[in-house]
Amino acid sequence: MFEVLLTVRSDFEYSAWIFTLGTELTQGRVINTNGSYLSRRLTLLGVKVIGIVTLMDDVELISRYLMLVLRESPKFIITTGGLGPTYDDRTLEAVAKALNRKLVLNGEALEMVKRKYEERKMPLTPERIKMAYLPEGGVPIPNPVGTAPGCWIEYGEVIIVSLPGVPIEMEAMWEKWVEPRLRKILPHVYIAEAIAKIVGIPESSLAPYLNKIAQEYEKVYVKSHPMGEELGRPIINIYIMASEADSSASLRLAQEVLNKIIAYTQNLGGFVDVLELKVS
Amino acid sequence: MFEVLLTVRSDFEYSAWIFTLGTELTQGRVINTNGSYLSRRLTLLGVKVIGIVTLMDDVELISRYLMLVLRESPKFIITTGGLGPTYDDRTLEAVAKALNRKLVLNGEALEMVKRKYEERKMPLTPERIKMAYLPEGGVPIPNPVGTAPGCWIEYGEVIIVSLPGVPIEMEAMWEKWVEPRLRKILPHVYIAEAIAKIVGIPESSLAPYLNKIAQEYEKVYVKSHPMGEELGRPIINIYIMASEADSSASLRLAQEVLNKIIAYTQNLGGFVDVLELKVS
Repeated sequence: MFEVLLTVRSDFEYSAWIFTLGTELTQGRVINTNGSYLSRRLTLLGVKVIGIVTLMDDVELISRYLMLVLRESPKFIITTGGLGPTYDDRTLEAVAKALNRKLVLNGEALEMVKRKYEERKMPLTPERIKMAYLPEGGVPIPNPVGTAPGCWIEYGEVIIVSLPGVPIEMEAMWEKWVEPRLRKILPHVYIAEAIAKIVGIPESSLAPYLNKIAQEYEKVYVKSHPMGEELGRPIINIYIMASEADSSASLRLAQEVLNKIIAYTQNLGGFVDVLELKVS
Repeated sequence: MFEVLLTVRSDFEYSAWIFTLGTELTQGRVINTNGSYLSRRLTLLGVKVIGIVTLMDDVELISRYLMLVLRESPKFIITTGGLGPTYDDRTLEAVAKALNRKLVLNGEALEMVKRKYEERKMPLTPERIKMAYLPEGGVPIPNPVGTAPGCWIEYGEVIIVSLPGVPIEMEAMWEKWVEPRLRKILPHVYIAEAIAKIVGIPESSLAPYLNKIAQEYEKVYVKSHPMGEELGRPIINIYIMASEADSSASLRLAQEVLNKIIAYTQNLGGFVDVLELKVS
């Protein structure tokens, strides 16, 4: 039973790693919502997110882990955090180091920063100019909310996108600038998702059946989540994700797996409540 | 200005990495509250958390990154997730692989699992017995909430603790079993924290001063967080953390740095509101 190889979304052609950077995260002062936002967006684009790496503010550490992840040849590496004007905002320096490129003052980025401070009638200090230094070959991403531009760099086949850590800035830049570009690169897939709540069957009784489903359906991902107990009866949420190039095919596939799990559960005397069935 | 080395908590002798495991995290369906819970608890124990690695359910991937992190010689590696009865719950297999140890049926762990199912009048199936397999040398950690035991393993100087992913189980096991043991190992420190809200000064104007503070005080960590704008004036939260072996010394140190930042800010025409000042 230990020998089953897990085939998670093997039909997802493109993979990604996310780096969420900042000592506020490794000290547990801030919950990593950027990690879940980006991994959700990438998943819905049909990208398989392999890992999310959260690191304290340390250039050497960050560049070292960027290099390790580059060896995995992901299609995308997305970083958040460390683009601001303070001494510990050094993500682009770490990216430059990992790619063995120079950090250079980018004219377009400088224009963006300059305009922001001119609007506020503030001078350009070294700390503000710092935000316009990008690794060589980097394209600045406009920040419609804050002052620090993001950065898009292509490195061989890998695309590295760096965004600020402030969620409202990061999300605006992702939605307005990054995601439209990714959509042009990625094959179009529709993700159908279903969640069923199962009451009265312990997870360990469902495990062999879910295992069988996972092997049978290559384009379906199934996972059980124990949700505690209710009147001494276990509650499990089953999550089903199916993807196809066509919206209705995707929904059909999720429904098919859902129906099988419902039948199996009811056969064991469990109760099923379908909480969600939708296509994105 | 790029050459300032960041000395984050250089007085923290022990370091840790956290692994939060599960495809529900890399797909962004679940927000990683386990990562922030554990990093907060470790920080308050005086442990420097270097990184949090979130990975999809893949034994080979997980063991590979455990091996990479082991090379960093942290004192602790804490993992969450992947201890349950389903086919993709394979964290301890990955730990065993990374440590080059066998996964063996642990008698004590089997007793724990057996008792749980006997109480519920349920048989021991292979999926349930699976939860009692630990890497050789592992000590099972009782799970007062769910069924899967955790695991404590010493590997040279490194302690690897594996806990379930369900937050209520993980937190109970951390608080009742793991943290009391860590307290016996770790030197006692008191962490004082202050948060000040600064209105009217852009982050880039404070940056050089905070940089200076960070260099001057080795036992103090300072970080600014831009919080947006209010009537066109920037709002920044300044977080200060100080640690000393003595509770009042720690508080005094945080207060001293706080006072300096208040004076500096008011001098620039900004407004300061101290939101918090406490010692843990």
